[in-house]
Amino acid sequence: MTTYFQDRYPDNYAHCYGCGRLNQNGWRISSSWDPEHPDQAFAVVKPPAELTGGWAGNLWGGVVAAVLDCHSAGTAAASKARELGLSDQDESPRCVTASLAVDYLKPTPVGVPLRLIAQASSIDGRKIWVDARLEAEGEVCATSRALMIQVV
Amino acid sequence: MTTYFQDRYPDNYAHCYGCGRLNQNGWRISSSWDPEHPDQAFAVVKPPAELTGGWAGNLWGGVVAAVLDCHSAGTAAASKARELGLSDQDESPRCVTASLAVDYLKPTPVGVPLRLIAQASSIDGRKIWVDARLEAEGEVCATSRALMIQVV
Repeated sequence: MTTYFQDRYPDNYAHCYGCGRLNQNGWRISSSWDPEHPDQAFAVVKPPAELTGGWAGNLWGGVVAAVLDCHSAGTAAASKARELGLSDQDESPRCVTASLAVDYLKPTPVGVPLRLIAQASSIDGRKIWVDARLEAEGEVCATSRALMIQVV
Repeated sequence: MTTYFQDRYPDNYAHCYGCGRLNQNGWRISSSWDPEHPDQAFAVVKPPAELTGGWAGNLWGGVVAAVLDCHSAGTAAASKARELGLSDQDESPRCVTASLAVDYLKPTPVGVPLRLIAQASSIDGRKIWVDARLEAEGEVCATSRALMIQVV
């Protein structure tokens, strides 16, 4: 059974609009390890089609950053948990974003599922760096690098 | 009379959920020059309180990136317009985000107005770099640097 990274947070950290399981109105982005690439985490999210950017048909760039942030935070937490020797079902550490840098490579369409892929590139104590990308219709639309800080 | 930067886009570029005047459901972030600091642009936005981060009471980090992005894009367009000798009422160029790097300095509270301040640090042809910050309750919660590309 897949345990999503976000299911491993305690209740008081489960309110994120993007990925919190207790946010009833949110998107509940659910990240998990990719069975075919054990160090990579993936998630799929389909933001509401009303979240357009300047041109109708393109996704709001802010949403691109937002979903990369959520998935990267989850990947950081799960990666740190692994480093600590925890199982993939144990409660995991929690991380907050210290920095997020997004490169927008091409417009992201609205109304389609977005595939998020992330991997921790380095862990140094409480600092976890995560590289991620966003794909839509088979094309990479954006990449990101985040520095996540384990706070609990 | 203040003309907001986003009022200077043509209709086909006015659909952004964050700042488009024609997006009926969006937030309509409205950026303008600061009379006291002529090279700085400011805007105020109060995202819906349901957009929490992991902990209830903190704003979703994705929203922080999103509103900085909108305000920086508007500031880039208005700054480029000035460089081109256009008046502050003329239709302005349009810019898209090539990269956005956000540093999260402290949690941003939900349910309060957020003040956005931005300034173009450099313009090189179609490339416009914009530095910005987000303040809540008088404190700087995040800073950003964006590279905006003038596309029209």
